Amino acid sequence: MAKRDSGCWVGVDLGGTKILTGVFDAQLRLLGTAKVSTRAERGVEVVLERIVRCVREALEAAGKSTGDVAAIGVGAPGAVDAARGTVRFAPNLPGWRNIPLGRKLTRALERPVVIGNDANVCALGVYEVELRARPRHVVGVFVGTGIGGGLILEGRLYEGCSHTAGEIGHMIVEVNGPRCGCGNRGCWEAVASRTAIFRRIREAVEGGENTVLTEWLGEDLEDLRSNDLRKAWKRGDKLVRRILLQAADYLGIGVANLINLLNPEVVVLGGGLMQALGPELLPRISRTAREHAMPGSCARLKIMASRLGDDAGITGAAVLARRWALSTSSS
Amino acid sequence: MAKRDSGCWVGVDLGGTKILTGVFDAQLRLLGTAKVSTRAERGVEVVLERIVRCVREALEAAGKSTGDVAAIGVGAPGAVDAARGTVRFAPNLPGWRNIPLGRKLTRALERPVVIGNDANVCALGVYEVELRARPRHVVGVFVGTGIGGGLILEGRLYEGCSHTAGEIGHMIVEVNGPRCGCGNRGCWEAVASRTAIFRRIREAVEGGENTVLTEWLGEDLEDLRSNDLRKAWKRGDKLVRRILLQAADYLGIGVANLINLLNPEVVVLGGGLMQALGPELLPRISRTAREHAMPGSCARLKIMASRLGDDAGITGAAVLARRWALSTSSS
Repeated sequence: MAKRDSGCWVGVDLGGTKILTGVFDAQLRLLGTAKVSTRAERGVEVVLERIVRCVREALEAAGKSTGDVAAIGVGAPGAVDAARGTVRFAPNLPGWRNIPLGRKLTRALERPVVIGNDANVCALGVYEVELRARPRHVVGVFVGTGIGGGLILEGRLYEGCSHTAGEIGHMIVEVNGPRCGCGNRGCWEAVASRTAIFRRIREAVEGGENTVLTEWLGEDLEDLRSNDLRKAWKRGDKLVRRILLQAADYLGIGVANLINLLNPEVVVLGGGLMQALGPELLPRISRTAREHAMPGSCARLKIMASRLGDDAGITGAAVLARRWALSTSSS
Repeated sequence: MAKRDSGCWVGVDLGGTKILTGVFDAQLRLLGTAKVSTRAERGVEVVLERIVRCVREALEAAGKSTGDVAAIGVGAPGAVDAARGTVRFAPNLPGWRNIPLGRKLTRALERPVVIGNDANVCALGVYEVELRARPRHVVGVFVGTGIGGGLILEGRLYEGCSHTAGEIGHMIVEVNGPRCGCGNRGCWEAVASRTAIFRRIREAVEGGENTVLTEWLGEDLEDLRSNDLRKAWKRGDKLVRRILLQAADYLGIGVANLINLLNPEVVVLGGGLMQALGPELLPRISRTAREHAMPGSCARLKIMASRLGDDAGITGAAVLARRWALSTSSS
């Protein structure tokens, strides 16, 4: 018990391109972080070593040692079996099928390790740290390369019967719409994610439309990032504004669907796109969502952007670790 | 307590065109039913009188009196405030805004009355009576004039923060699709309900296509019903088959969305359209849903048609009454 009261929580955000780690004190204040590239193409073992390295670097930054760690949480990008601690399948991590991530990290770091789906973990972090666990029903929407979701229902993370709930990015909102990475057409993330926005901008440029982005980055727009979109928006670039507002409308329509289905108190938007363009997009997303939701379902609704930004993943992973430790200590 | 053990439960299914009532014994076996037309156009008071009449007729058919009734449940077609017993808003019942249905029926029948949203109540009935309350997560989809939904999550009816959850019919699946009664475009019920099917058949006939339906009903297809569709299907009518399979695909896509979001163990389809055409449509709905759902989310999934048919509403309303009575007796 002394360990849990005085010890620290480690949260790991395992992504397709980078690994972020945060060390948090007992009250979930961030003490130190580290970041390493994932190098997923080099195979599972290399990624595992890099996670361990990232955790050690974050502990060093926080002035802590592994002995101070009460538990480690990991958010992984894919289908996770939390009970077994395995990553069943991770589309952005080549070779990751049924990898016993929890056991392997426990062995390497000699501390308890709990894992969860990355978007679920982000929702948990926002819920507990940013919203202070007050609302009963919260939908987290994380918009980046794709759209991930996490559902907090009745105050608890809702995972469904085989832990795959919250796959909001693959909700079809436009039958026969653009092809999604999953193979279907018209998934929400195929029309409203950063990937969809980048695709539309490239198509428009190929179609001969003008944007300041080509002045900055060249005609192929190879290094296009969310921050470029924000700068172009601020410069009043018409093409970028039009395409971002269209994406905001698509985001609003998907949010309306979630409101109609789940009648949450809070819809919280996060992820890379929202971090770069939250103030620009949120009013339009919110307006479109409210216009399309059923009367009565918005009576107590708040639609907001998360302030946690890139830290949602590490924060949520630390929350996951703490929730696990508290549940084992009380049982 | 004697009343609850030996008494009976009454379930009322209040619809826009008809009121159904069932009297059930303590084990929820159906003892007797009654049906009256709603006459919603004559105003709220007339409808209330007709509900009371329908309850009395059902009791008579069951050989029971109001004194035998432990509690009465009512499923109402609209937004319901269960705690207050009021119907806040019912699109198909003119003048129904903030009607204290529970209090008025309690006064008239001198028994406790509990109310709920009709689709939620149907889901509850299917869950408890047909599925024996075994699965933890069930989505009920009721397809008729519109598409209603009820969510059973963690073994309990999920209603959201202001009791409007489960509005699955207004999930937008086709941005810029056909106009829905709610004012939006491309709602699920605008592309997959009986209303959508009838609209497409009429458009095809106006466009010069042939169907056996016009031989039976005339060119205007005025009295078209679900059973006509079944007969035309069985006769091999190409137009009807094509349009029904298209609707089944739309139904399957919406079911896939619900699977991706909620990862249920069971999706159960009911309502008038499924009662008439369940065996014809279910295989196609199920196939399309599984094709569009994420890998892993269907591992433990069952997609089925309810056997309760038109009785889902009265059964669920009786279950609602019994759940309420059990919760008050234990608290």
